[in-house]
Formats: sequence, structure tokens, C-alpha cells
Amino acid sequence: MATEMPSFATPTTNRQIVLAQRPQGTPQAGDFEQREQPCPTPGEGAFLVRNLYLAADPVQRGWAANPAVMAIGAPMRALAVGVVIESRDASVGEGDVVYGFLGWQDYAVVTRADLLSHIPNPRAPLPAYAGVLGMPGVTAWISLHDIAPPSEGKSILVSTAAGTVGSVVGQIARRRGAHVVGLTGSDDKIARCVENYGYHAAYNYKVGDLAATLAEARPQGFDIYFDNTGGAILDTAIRAMARFGRIIQCGTAATPSWSPPPTGLRNEREILMRALTWTGFVIFDHVARFPEAIEQMTDMLLEGSLKHDEIVEPGLDRIVPALEALFAGTNAAKTLVYIGED
Amino acid sequence: MATEMPSFATPTTNRQIVLAQRPQGTPQAGDFEQREQPCPTPGEGAFLVRNLYLAADPVQRGWAANPAVMAIGAPMRALAVGVVIESRDASVGEGDVVYGFLGWQDYAVVTRADLLSHIPNPRAPLPAYAGVLGMPGVTAWISLHDIAPPSEGKSILVSTAAGTVGSVVGQIARRRGAHVVGLTGSDDKIARCVENYGYHAAYNYKVGDLAATLAEARPQGFDIYFDNTGGAILDTAIRAMARFGRIIQCGTAATPSWSPPPTGLRNEREILMRALTWTGFVIFDHVARFPEAIEQMTDMLLEGSLKHDEIVEPGLDRIVPALEALFAGTNAAKTLVYIGED
Repeated sequence: MATEMPSFATPTTNRQIVLAQRPQGTPQAGDFEQREQPCPTPGEGAFLVRNLYLAADPVQRGWAANPAVMAIGAPMRALAVGVVIESRDASVGEGDVVYGFLGWQDYAVVTRADLLSHIPNPRAPLPAYAGVLGMPGVTAWISLHDIAPPSEGKSILVSTAAGTVGSVVGQIARRRGAHVVGLTGSDDKIARCVENYGYHAAYNYKVGDLAATLAEARPQGFDIYFDNTGGAILDTAIRAMARFGRIIQCGTAATPSWSPPPTGLRNEREILMRALTWTGFVIFDHVARFPEAIEQMTDMLLEGSLKHDEIVEPGLDRIVPALEALFAGTNAAKTLVYIGED
Repeated sequence: MATEMPSFATPTTNRQIVLAQRPQGTPQAGDFEQREQPCPTPGEGAFLVRNLYLAADPVQRGWAANPAVMAIGAPMRALAVGVVIESRDASVGEGDVVYGFLGWQDYAVVTRADLLSHIPNPRAPLPAYAGVLGMPGVTAWISLHDIAPPSEGKSILVSTAAGTVGSVVGQIARRRGAHVVGLTGSDDKIARCVENYGYHAAYNYKVGDLAATLAEARPQGFDIYFDNTGGAILDTAIRAMARFGRIIQCGTAATPSWSPPPTGLRNEREILMRALTWTGFVIFDHVARFPEAIEQMTDMLLEGSLKHDEIVEPGLDRIVPALEALFAGTNAAKTLVYIGED
């Protein structure tokens, strides 16, 4: 089943959301501005992409804050799904779907180096390539497969369990036969974890004594901890690990600012005594693994065994609110902004 | 070249150093008492060992403090080298050298489960089996080989660089072609690191700005950090790591007490951004690897390419002072106590 493609008018202007100032703390509306530029044309080896689905991802906070990554006035660095409409790279065809660093704008001139995935014959709905088949879902798949594979009889604890990454971690781990326990922040998210995402149990980390909750949930300790939060949740989770456990550090959402450097419990004795292995996972180090991850996850998606909740909102003016909602924790699911039609 | 064996009188009494009370902080003389017991006899499957070289090791502090590991009044749990003088285990011969949990006493009845190594035909001097070929040296060999192998062009940072473990880490890493940098606590130890133990450079962690020292020593960052200290040195070392670096957590000597739980810099963001892998190493999890480690290190020792400094003091009454000196940092080298002759 081929995915149906939209058609496009001849490009004229290119609307962009640019970084107006560096965010203080989490990104806010006032940090961005909309402007219009002429539509660019691709040079040799490059191609022109019509962006369709713009993503708002936590990693953008770091990009916006870092002068080495992006300049003030540049289109906001962002992941998006688009369609190639003019190509001067023989390996990329017009009509190919691409996912990568396309920015918050209508059109992008990029090269293959800017892509995370190149999908000439998409089998899944296009928004999925920025969500469950994009950075969040692929982060779950690659980190579990390559760093800490869950298996029958093993247990895994997941923070931000209902999030775009955690929801896929839960499902993959359950599929592999592991005992899957989630931590999240509301009753609604707990329900989604258990009903939709394969968790055997999920708990609100804000309620009660988390150490006691984890000890009761898995008296023999957890074999894997997939961590998206860091902070006090991490400190408690480390002390709930079984010996020889693996920790995947995927995010640090619990810490609002790293300046001045925050402090917490010293963890090296736990690492030592429990003989743990703790690994930092940055998805952009693993781009070569995207094709296999996407292929396998597409099979799961099409057979109905991979649940995901992407919300698609129309209109370029929705993307900054989507990013704000991400850091406010008010988004119910991964939000993508569709800009294929004005 | 076979190692010459002492001969022994028929055993009568068994002198023991027993744990009189649990240490408050580091172990002190008042925590121990000497007593005499009848010499034990081995039951079926066990054997009687005449202890020759008693070791004092940092790990004994934890054993003495932990009621689950040893009772008040029991002979102090300790590693030692001895000779089997009566065996009721067909796989262990009289005259075999053994190294393991023999305790601070003249005689021990043990089984193979109590051994770290069984050396029927020793090629090295016997004290070496409790030092460079014992737990400290084997810790260096196994952790480097199995967790973070150094190699040509890689760099390794080592804390307690002149110690019984660190001195072997330095030599093995240098032999593998790595760039080897040590941290230690005195000019004398710095000199030993560079002159004896293969370090390209060594620094006193107490002097100056350690972060600046490490940045200058290895501007591109360290690929491996072998840590025996934890604490502030660890926090600084983590921030001097190259991406994809490996940390071996082998000890936490910098922290005098874990109750109440000490705090320090939060390190999860460094683990994440640098994509580090941090692994706790407990030598007793790796007993099956001892024979290969000892075999290879014995070759190095006999060919003269493995320097070590064991000090052997005679007399059972020297073992408690040796343990005290270990925690006071006043020992110039690994101290063993010889009790083969009264």
C-alpha cells in the first residue's frame, strides 16, 4: 500500500520561524519571529524540500541556547518531514519523502547530510515519520537494541513512560517479553501507559515514596532503566536497580537549568556495588541505524502492534505553541504542525 | 623455574585476629583482638591451608562494617596466600599454593569456593600472588581487558595512579600503546608513576586547578577513566572525557563515609552529552577470569616488564597496623605480612 502524496504549487516565498533571541530557560513565544524570504534553489548535490510536518522536540531547547549550533536570525533548527520537489542529487528523486534537519520553514535546500531518513517509498502515513518512525520512536528502538536489550524475565523501568520515546520503549520491551514498569506524572498518563503502551504497571512519581513504590514494584530490582528525566528520579531509580543492571541516559528533563551546576546524591558507589553500566545515548550518533529501525517499526505499525498518538495541527503559527506546550507538559501527545496547505 | 616451598611443623594452635567491634569510619587497632584456637581439621571436600602471606585490602573496611558479611568475634575476613597441608578435595593437592579468603589466621579450613586462585605450580614468588598477581593486579588486568581496553592512540586517566591497582593499570595501558596519565597525592608517588609504572605524566590532584590540569594534559579528552576515588576527582574527570569515553568505577576512596549520603555535582548530563559509558567493577564477580589474568601477568613479571613494590613484614602483630596505614595513606606500597615462621 503506497502512501498518497499531496501535490504542490510552484514555490514563491518561503515563510520561516526564526530565532529572535536565545531563550532564558525554556523557549517562549517571544524568542521567535516569523519572516518571509524568497524560495531558495538547490545547488549541485543539494535538493529542495517542501516541508509538510514540522516537529517540536525537547532537543531544540539546547540548539536555541547554543551559539555554536545556530545563529540569532536563522530559521529555527528543527526536524520535519517533507517531499523533495527539485533534486540536484542523483541519489534523491523528486517525490521522495525525507525526514531530517529541514527547519521551521516552508522550503528547505538541504543535502543528504541533513537527513535522518530518506524514504523513497513510504509505507506509513507521512506524519509517523516525524513521530513514532522519527527521532522519538527510533531513539527507543536503537537504544534498546544496541545498548540494553530487554528480554524474557528481565525487568525495565522507564521514566517519561507515556512520552513519545517512553511509549515506544514500553511497547518494544513488552514485545520482547520483559516486565515493564513506567513512571509518569498523571493518572491519565498512567492509564495510557497500561492500556496503550504495554506497561505492566505505571506510577505517578509525584505521589508517595518513590523508593518504596519501586521496591514493591520489583523487589529483586530492575535490570534496565531507561531514563529521560535525570534528577531525583534517577537517584532513586539507581538505588532500585538489580546488580549488573543497565541504565540508558536519554534525556535530563527533570533539571530546568544546568547553570549553576546542580547537585544531587553521589551515585558512584551505587554504580560500583551494583556493578551497573550507565550509558549516554544521543540519537544523532546512530543515524546509520535509522533504516533498519524504521523498517522494523513500520512492520509493527502496519500490523497494528505499535500504538502511537500523534496530534497534527494545521498552520505555521501553531509550531511555537507546540514547543511551549512540550516544556509545560500540557501536550497530550506528540504534536506535529502540518504546513502543506496554506 | 619452580618456586621453592617452605616446610611446616605439625599444626597445633591457630592464632587468629578477630573482629572485636565494628569500625566507626576506618578500621583501627581497637576494633581487633588476637586469640588462639585449636587448629581445625578439614571435612570431606575441604582442605587445610597454612597461611603464609596475609593481605590488608581496602575492601576489608566494608566487610568489617557489614553484619551480613561477618560476625563480631569471627576471624577477620581477609585475602591471603597459603599452602595446602591437608586435603580432602581430590582436585587440590597437598603443597598446592592457594590465594583466597583465608582470613587473618595461621590456619584455615576452606573449600574451592573460598579461593580466588589455585596455583599448583607457582612460577612467581609467593607474595606476588597476593599483590601484583592477586586481587589488586588482577583487578587492573580484567577490568581493562573486559570493560575498557586501552589501545594505540587512546588516552587513559587513572586515579590512585601509584597504588596497587593503579600501578598495574598504568603499566598494562602503556604496554597497549595508550597515552597514560595518572592522578596521585604526592611528589614521591608522581615520580614512581613516571619512572616505574609507565605513566607519560602524573599530577598531584591536590595542587592547582585539576580541571585546567586535565584539559592541558589531554585537550581532546580522555577515552578511559579508571577511577578508584570517586568524589570531586571523579566529577572533574568526567568533564575531561572525550565523547564515547569509558569510565571504570573500581573504588570510592575519596568518600570517607556514605552515611549520611553525600552529594556532589549531577553527572547525568555529562554521561548523556558525551555519550559516556560508566561501569562498576567488582573483582569478585570475575573470579573465572583469574587464571588467564595470572598466567599473562606472570609472563610479564618473569620477563621483567611488570614492576611492583610489595613490602613484606614479618609477624602476625603487623597486620592490623598495615590495614591502618592503608587508610591513613602512609604505606609506600602494598604491605603483606608473613606469618610462615613464628
